[in-house]
Amino acid sequence: MAHVNEHYLKLQAGYLFPEIGRRVSAFADANSDAKIIRMGIGDVVKGIPRPIIDAMKNAAEELAHDESFRGYPSEQGLDFLREAIAKNEYQDAGVDIGADEIFVSDGSKCDSGNIQEIFATDSTIALTDPVYPVYCDSNVMAGRTGACRDGRYDGVVYLPCTEDNNFVPALPEQHVDLIYLCSPNNPTGAVMSRDALAEWVEYARSENAIILFDAAYEGYITGDGLPHSIYEIDGAREVAIEFRSYSKSAGFTGTRCAFTVVPRELTGYTVSGDPVALHGLWNRRQSTKFNGVSYPVQRAAEASYTPEGKAAVHSLIAFYLENAAIMHDRLAACGYTIFGGVNAPYLWLRTPAGYDSWGFFDHLLKNAHVVGTPGSGFGAAGEGFFRLSAFNQRDAVEEAMDRISRLK
Amino acid sequence: MAHVNEHYLKLQAGYLFPEIGRRVSAFADANSDAKIIRMGIGDVVKGIPRPIIDAMKNAAEELAHDESFRGYPSEQGLDFLREAIAKNEYQDAGVDIGADEIFVSDGSKCDSGNIQEIFATDSTIALTDPVYPVYCDSNVMAGRTGACRDGRYDGVVYLPCTEDNNFVPALPEQHVDLIYLCSPNNPTGAVMSRDALAEWVEYARSENAIILFDAAYEGYITGDGLPHSIYEIDGAREVAIEFRSYSKSAGFTGTRCAFTVVPRELTGYTVSGDPVALHGLWNRRQSTKFNGVSYPVQRAAEASYTPEGKAAVHSLIAFYLENAAIMHDRLAACGYTIFGGVNAPYLWLRTPAGYDSWGFFDHLLKNAHVVGTPGSGFGAAGEGFFRLSAFNQRDAVEEAMDRISRLK
Repeated sequence: MAHVNEHYLKLQAGYLFPEIGRRVSAFADANSDAKIIRMGIGDVVKGIPRPIIDAMKNAAEELAHDESFRGYPSEQGLDFLREAIAKNEYQDAGVDIGADEIFVSDGSKCDSGNIQEIFATDSTIALTDPVYPVYCDSNVMAGRTGACRDGRYDGVVYLPCTEDNNFVPALPEQHVDLIYLCSPNNPTGAVMSRDALAEWVEYARSENAIILFDAAYEGYITGDGLPHSIYEIDGAREVAIEFRSYSKSAGFTGTRCAFTVVPRELTGYTVSGDPVALHGLWNRRQSTKFNGVSYPVQRAAEASYTPEGKAAVHSLIAFYLENAAIMHDRLAACGYTIFGGVNAPYLWLRTPAGYDSWGFFDHLLKNAHVVGTPGSGFGAAGEGFFRLSAFNQRDAVEEAMDRISRLK
Repeated sequence: MAHVNEHYLKLQAGYLFPEIGRRVSAFADANSDAKIIRMGIGDVVKGIPRPIIDAMKNAAEELAHDESFRGYPSEQGLDFLREAIAKNEYQDAGVDIGADEIFVSDGSKCDSGNIQEIFATDSTIALTDPVYPVYCDSNVMAGRTGACRDGRYDGVVYLPCTEDNNFVPALPEQHVDLIYLCSPNNPTGAVMSRDALAEWVEYARSENAIILFDAAYEGYITGDGLPHSIYEIDGAREVAIEFRSYSKSAGFTGTRCAFTVVPRELTGYTVSGDPVALHGLWNRRQSTKFNGVSYPVQRAAEASYTPEGKAAVHSLIAFYLENAAIMHDRLAACGYTIFGGVNAPYLWLRTPAGYDSWGFFDHLLKNAHVVGTPGSGFGAAGEGFFRLSAFNQRDAVEEAMDRISRLK
């Protein structure tokens, strides 16, 4: 009898976005005239810049001809892109990362979900609360947790991110093996300072732990002195894996390209204490279960590093950050308490008195026809908060803010 | 201390293709005038047909404009492609598969490597010998095997495919939970008849086992009466998952698109005997760890089902099959004993007296400057055999055959 992976059955039904969809559909059905503005899911809306699209089309054309046809891309990414990433994302900023430490992939969701495979099943994991659900669910599926009780899985070390700590997690009091950090943060929009990140690197070094650092929103950091990469911190090469993406910078949510950095020095251990290079394990994982990123997509990602590409990506990010600033100002003027939205495309607001996360969701939907995401959907500590995404057209942002202003 | 997944350390070094690369490089360095013809790796060489490339470019252009921009594709594949697959690959052939049973992905390697995640770690797996290494290695990494001894992993049920059984595996004598079958086969080129496949479906039904059926080379079947899909067999919907790919049909090895079929009826069980729908488990796996296929790539795959697209794909396959026929005839005329190469792009030849698989590899490389793949690289039962790929330009095929002819 073929038995299933019963760890899957511990997963809480992916209730957040389906439940949002259900409530929005029900409202739309009953109010067919309502012009609903969606600020829930973090998906971009602007067209991909011309130089990037042209590179994609030119590469597609290459594939039409025997002379320029390309077959299997290497599982690690094609050299031209790995080299462009190492230079433009790291070396030009004085950060020591080599092209052979870059693994190009079809998404940070995939990489941050798959990375746990190379670690032991009995590893202790630390997750922030609230958290991007993939970090949690991928570990539940692998059997690294117990059952879920009251929204938290047994065996996971939760790191609450609250107003008291400015939504930056404190170090755990016990040993953990794997730590998922995300900065700029999804969902809170909080950005870790250099000092805060250095504390985590120091913790990981002293505990022989590994930090899994999700920097998918790195492009949104404009503030001086804030680290764009964990490798800006001394000693991070020995303890951190970093995830980056083109989704929210070059507008690649529908195009699919990202990359993961696994430094050569990064080491895990066997139970008997022998060191094992994680670079080799991840390389083996990718070589066995992945077949590389579509060639035209890799050429498109490369084009984001041309002068024209860089300027266009900068404009895209500036547009969304201006959305965030408008939302921040308008909501603050209405009396809302707001976090995030600076150096990040997400605003994290405290729900007004009398509303929990879902109550505020229903209130906004019913009275402003605006869809956001209830903070409690990202974890127990998200209760009483609400996420709004700045990924929208300007007129939709203005209209949503007008409607919310009129609620007062 | 962060411990690694020690199952990875059981993996035999991926010696086959790296070792081929090493020997070819060494030969090329020492013989810079040699024009080496590569018939080793199964990668296509012909340009992608015009209607498919145009669809890809048009979809890329859509992404450049706010009005037609597309963000996250659904993790299961976009409806237009799922519907085109269900209709063209199944329903038009009278096979009952619905669009919602199709999961579009970036490759059959990924899907056939990831599928084991939804099954229990203590599942007993059956693998043919020789075998496509991904089926084996992905299970080793998940801890479903013991150590490797003499090229075979403890705990795996091996199904030898030899001349005696025409390279079609016999049913195992014991119970197994998961069975990997591939037809047309990589590496042997053998195709399972309807009766042979029906025997396996019957076995799986009686044992509550699941067949993982890799039909990536289905397009190469031209013979009458041979099943293109396992779902042509009565009862297969309750016991089989099928993998298909655009790589070897539409020339998508560098473009990346494939799909996996998980019928609604397909059921696994908990240890306590409760049925669990595998469709829901795979959907959860893909929703959590995958983010869909690039939009222009999905439009390109869709275009392979237009009348022009179908005709062009048919021509591509016919070209490679003609290569295979030429190789078959020429090698037979030289006295080689050949299997496969009919309804399949791979020829599987018995190495001549006095040569084992690697010995023949060296002989061909040194004396004909032709690279193939030693059969022993695919498993112990592949010793004494050699794989040649028909994926090449015609002049290279002719030249390789001329050179091999002159060896005699």
